[in-house]
Amino acid sequence: MSNGVYYSEYLQLDKILNAQTLESDKAGDHAHDEMLFIIIHQSYELWFKQILFEVGSVMEIMSKPNISDNSPDLFTVNHRLNRVITILDVLVQKIDILETMTPLDFLDFRNRLRPASGFQSIQFKVLEAYLGLRMNQRHGKEYYTSQLKPEDKKFIEDTEKTKPLIDLVNEWLERMPFFDEQNLWPDGWNSNTEHPFWKAYQVAYDASLLPAEKNNLHRFETLFLGNEKTTETVLSPRARRAALFILMYRDYPLLQLPFQLINNLLEIDNTLSNWRYRHINMVHRMIGTRTGTGGSTGKDYLQGALNSHYIFKEFAELTSFMIERNKLPKLSAAMSQRLGFDV
Amino acid sequence: MSNGVYYSEYLQLDKILNAQTLESDKAGDHAHDEMLFIIIHQSYELWFKQILFEVGSVMEIMSKPNISDNSPDLFTVNHRLNRVITILDVLVQKIDILETMTPLDFLDFRNRLRPASGFQSIQFKVLEAYLGLRMNQRHGKEYYTSQLKPEDKKFIEDTEKTKPLIDLVNEWLERMPFFDEQNLWPDGWNSNTEHPFWKAYQVAYDASLLPAEKNNLHRFETLFLGNEKTTETVLSPRARRAALFILMYRDYPLLQLPFQLINNLLEIDNTLSNWRYRHINMVHRMIGTRTGTGGSTGKDYLQGALNSHYIFKEFAELTSFMIERNKLPKLSAAMSQRLGFDV
Amino acid sequence: MSNGVYYSEYLQLDKILNAQTLESDKAGDHAHDEMLFIIIHQSYELWFKQILFEVGSVMEIMSKPNISDNSPDLFTVNHRLNRVITILDVLVQKIDILETMTPLDFLDFRNRLRPASGFQSIQFKVLEAYLGLRMNQRHGKEYYTSQLKPEDKKFIEDTEKTKPLIDLVNEWLERMPFFDEQNLWPDGWNSNTEHPFWKAYQVAYDASLLPAEKNNLHRFETLFLGNEKTTETVLSPRARRAALFILMYRDYPLLQLPFQLINNLLEIDNTLSNWRYRHINMVHRMIGTRTGTGGSTGKDYLQGALNSHYIFKEFAELTSFMIERNKLPKLSAAMSQRLGFDV
Amino acid sequence: MSNGVYYSEYLQLDKILNAQTLESDKAGDHAHDEMLFIIIHQSYELWFKQILFEVGSVMEIMSKPNISDNSPDLFTVNHRLNRVITILDVLVQKIDILETMTPLDFLDFRNRLRPASGFQSIQFKVLEAYLGLRMNQRHGKEYYTSQLKPEDKKFIEDTEKTKPLIDLVNEWLERMPFFDEQNLWPDGWNSNTEHPFWKAYQVAYDASLLPAEKNNLHRFETLFLGNEKTTETVLSPRARRAALFILMYRDYPLLQLPFQLINNLLEIDNTLSNWRYRHINMVHRMIGTRTGTGGSTGKDYLQGALNSHYIFKEFAELTSFMIERNKLPKLSAAMSQRLGFDV
Repeated sequence: MSNGVYYSEYLQLDKILNAQTLESDKAGDHAHDEMLFIIIHQSYELWFKQILFEVGSVMEIMSKPNISDNSPDLFTVNHRLNRVITILDVLVQKIDILETMTPLDFLDFRNRLRPASGFQSIQFKVLEAYLGLRMNQRHGKEYYTSQLKPEDKKFIEDTEKTKPLIDLVNEWLERMPFFDEQNLWPDGWNSNTEHPFWKAYQVAYDASLLPAEKNNLHRFETLFLGNEKTTETVLSPRARRAALFILMYRDYPLLQLPFQLINNLLEIDNTLSNWRYRHINMVHRMIGTRTGTGGSTGKDYLQGALNSHYIFKEFAELTSFMIERNKLPKLSAAMSQRLGFDV
Repeated sequence: MSNGVYYSEYLQLDKILNAQTLESDKAGDHAHDEMLFIIIHQSYELWFKQILFEVGSVMEIMSKPNISDNSPDLFTVNHRLNRVITILDVLVQKIDILETMTPLDFLDFRNRLRPASGFQSIQFKVLEAYLGLRMNQRHGKEYYTSQLKPEDKKFIEDTEKTKPLIDLVNEWLERMPFFDEQNLWPDGWNSNTEHPFWKAYQVAYDASLLPAEKNNLHRFETLFLGNEKTTETVLSPRARRAALFILMYRDYPLLQLPFQLINNLLEIDNTLSNWRYRHINMVHRMIGTRTGTGGSTGKDYLQGALNSHYIFKEFAELTSFMIERNKLPKLSAAMSQRLGFDV
Repeated sequence: MSNGVYYSEYLQLDKILNAQTLESDKAGDHAHDEMLFIIIHQSYELWFKQILFEVGSVMEIMSKPNISDNSPDLFTVNHRLNRVITILDVLVQKIDILETMTPLDFLDFRNRLRPASGFQSIQFKVLEAYLGLRMNQRHGKEYYTSQLKPEDKKFIEDTEKTKPLIDLVNEWLERMPFFDEQNLWPDGWNSNTEHPFWKAYQVAYDASLLPAEKNNLHRFETLFLGNEKTTETVLSPRARRAALFILMYRDYPLLQLPFQLINNLLEIDNTLSNWRYRHINMVHRMIGTRTGTGGSTGKDYLQGALNSHYIFKEFAELTSFMIERNKLPKLSAAMSQRLGFDV
Repeated sequence: MSNGVYYSEYLQLDKILNAQTLESDKAGDHAHDEMLFIIIHQSYELWFKQILFEVGSVMEIMSKPNISDNSPDLFTVNHRLNRVITILDVLVQKIDILETMTPLDFLDFRNRLRPASGFQSIQFKVLEAYLGLRMNQRHGKEYYTSQLKPEDKKFIEDTEKTKPLIDLVNEWLERMPFFDEQNLWPDGWNSNTEHPFWKAYQVAYDASLLPAEKNNLHRFETLFLGNEKTTETVLSPRARRAALFILMYRDYPLLQLPFQLINNLLEIDNTLSNWRYRHINMVHRMIGTRTGTGGSTGKDYLQGALNSHYIFKEFAELTSFMIERNKLPKLSAAMSQRLGFDV
């Protein structure tokens, strides 16, 4: 044994492996499956810590005033979001483990846990706040805040005061320069007149609509061509135009990393949504229509959250405004070169 | 090369590997991703064939008038349902592959497929019919039948005339003999008086309810203690009692395989529901709020089906009527022995 | 906020979430990915604790002198082993997360960890000892024990003094009564003469062998028909006969749970082996042929362990001695009934 | 029903779903599990077709003389290789399905299949040939070719005459221009003198080696600094230098897609290796040490293939020659700009 770092000390296993105290043991009525219940939730919280660490570092990068698509920053951002997605995927699979506990096994200790419940996971609430969910968008918020200690409630409220990732992404999209660079567009165009690219795009989009879809055009105008964002949206029209452009022209080298960033945000919503859905089904199977340990009818709460907690849905909606590749407005040679193509 | 079976001939690969014709190629406008689209759907259909083969064989066994918990039949049934679940799990994971096709890639050939759509998968409809979904329970049934060729519609309707798995399971549960065997229960009890077991169970269940849950008791009486099934349920009170008994006393050797059977049915619903949910998210990401190739707004249809197509939900609901193990009515020594315990 | 259990206190999150100290931070040279490295290993150790808890409880049950196939004990054993398998499956998938760390990211802090290494995971060594791996079977044991603190080494050695699961299973198989119950076998047979069942089985097995396989017969005789186990095996011939019988006649109700038990042991070996294999590949990708933090050439060690650490391989080998179902010796009516069939 | 494409016709389900003929049925001795055996292999072959379609298209792109890191080609290549990886991942998971067939179930029809075997999958052999495995590297090649029809053997040999992906990647790496562009390097350097970058790298690498690793330096010189490739390697020193540079400086925008390409190749090897490993374990569990339907001792063959069929191992080995990020030679401002950084 040479000197240096020792595995169990490095990992502080004395803390980690001595943090399991069964309520059923305290009551002198050992319930075998309570150990699983504790360990799986501790494991979830460990991973939430890791996710917050990654998302926090991403927010720090995206807060820089000058993050450029040419810097390694965007590579780092995507690399870390990818890791978050991989972690979330494993958290979903991990529900398989909890499902080895049957309703009957859970009954053995369920009542001893009241009123503790997963609602009280501060880290998960912080994650939602980091990404962009606000207190007033939270499903059943009165109920949910009533479950928290005042200091925990305050902690989440304070967290919500920082600018969330979705706002940072909106600002980054707004800074996308190409549309303002007059040399990339036809002579004679200036910022007081309608932009030639979006004029052409609007026509092509209109032509792509089936008769039954014609009011999509109106929505396109509101979401993309206005100057200000509506009160109920996070993305501004300017940011939205940039995002749609990125999605449609993502073959250009300079748009690769931006494209990945948007995809990663959608993937995070997707995986969180899978997690919520498997979670609902699991809770339903475990307690049926009975009352959860936190006092709610667990399934109803979760069903509500399922539908209202898509954070990046404004990005998902962009898909509705795409057109076929061969109908896209052609870019100028100058623009192609600007985006990384030698022409 | 000795004589005998040859791999490619045995698998009829000349058929399997020569069944991909791209609509985009016919139109002289090759869309690379259409190959993936064809192959993944063919692969799904191959697996649906296998699932129908397994479920069909299970239905055949369960149709026997005298299937006993002591025969290998129930082992075989569980083994095959387990296989169905494993297959469904892989079908869910397979959505990962389709998600490597982006909305833009799909736009390249999407319009060429109209009006073909996944609604037209006969095998999937037959699977639902085998398990127990009836035409009048199908979400948006007018729309959906309008998409089928008359012969395909008729084929599904004919399939729905056979007794589905859920009915066969109901009948098998009704045949469970223990409650009628007078030697297993206190002297003096006969079939004209209330059953002593369920009398005791009802008291224990009532005691387990929180104040806010008290109307569960009424529902318990309706679902378990009546003599006839209501019009909107499939399970009869008699079958329901047997099922609840199996779930609560599944530790007894004779109840192991019955317990697995109920669990497997729930797991099938669970996996089908995961499949539908991932499918919705995938469709939403692929076409947004645009119109699907079949003419529907795909997401709305799928969302409707998601909520209405739980086939075994009456089994899932049993959970709401469980009580803690140590509060369960004690069984007599005779009953314990009957169920496989030496006492 | 009502009184009672509070989520973060119940889970002792103050310990769990304050147990991450980066060596790179101590050195004033923050390496972002070290957090991931710590958290994934802590998560692994949490799960090892859970696995040991389950396997330990299984060993306790299997140590009872009179565990019967008719008791709920065997159901409990299988249920818990199944859970262990599910956990191991997720641990394998979790390698995906570690693979989001590239070799370059690892280089940022790898040297700071020396000589700590995964070899030093006491819990994993204890798991192997619980299942049945002995110190002298461990690949590269001198090297590996040189990495441990004396108290940790002693702890593992002490653990190895308790009877491992594989021995407990061997003893349970030896207690299987059917072959000795004279009423189940032809009149005139007694324990001094060759057993009629195995005589018939041997003939049928011999007939099933291809010409090139004929020396399997000799091995059959040694492993199954002798009276004592060889020095290098754990299973005795008597236990082996019981196990093969269970595998071949698992359709009988009384053999279901024993069949599941054997299958579960094989599945544990299978999953542990998948884990080792993915682990090797991951280490190889991370450090190539360089020296691991523990001083070994990590890949070589792991490759050695991969091949030598199959604990239940004697059960896996039983497959080589199976024959086709329709060629099996027929059981007597008495035997059928004994095994749970009404005839 | 409007006119147009119909689902079942589009997918040619009449072919796909009528291509299952059980050998056991022909023999009048129906074996239930043979259906699964046929369908899973057909499903594998469908996916092999898709994989070949993707890899083939990637080879076509990589064969272009002028593929530039700035073109969408490299994005397309990575996108398609990613899809291949996703497919391979699902193929690995699919082994779960086959594992629901027990050895006893397989015995019911195994002998009827002789001598057909998975060796005879032409598409899989073609995939290996496409990637870069050559006939003379194939484990047990005499045995394996003896199993093929002459026309199939010839087909694979013909395929091997085309330049495989690994050679195309080698050529693409050799074309990487940066090291030859004199303006990016210190004045006075010319192609007749040692390259200043690699001179510095070699010193830094030497300093990073532990005493026990010192002969890595010699290997570094052979593999990276020579002018010609050795007979047993595919990558030339020039290509190898480019690849190592890409791995170490992958933060630069222009190196992102090249970095992904190398990673994807490694991931393909990794997943193929997982597939082979799970396959071995499955075969071992299914037939033990008995003879496979193709006449081999299946496990031995597969074990051999496992070790010899890593196609991109020369890329994996690059890891051994990495150094810490903060010890890397600094690039000139001109070089940084060339690689996409504004300085």
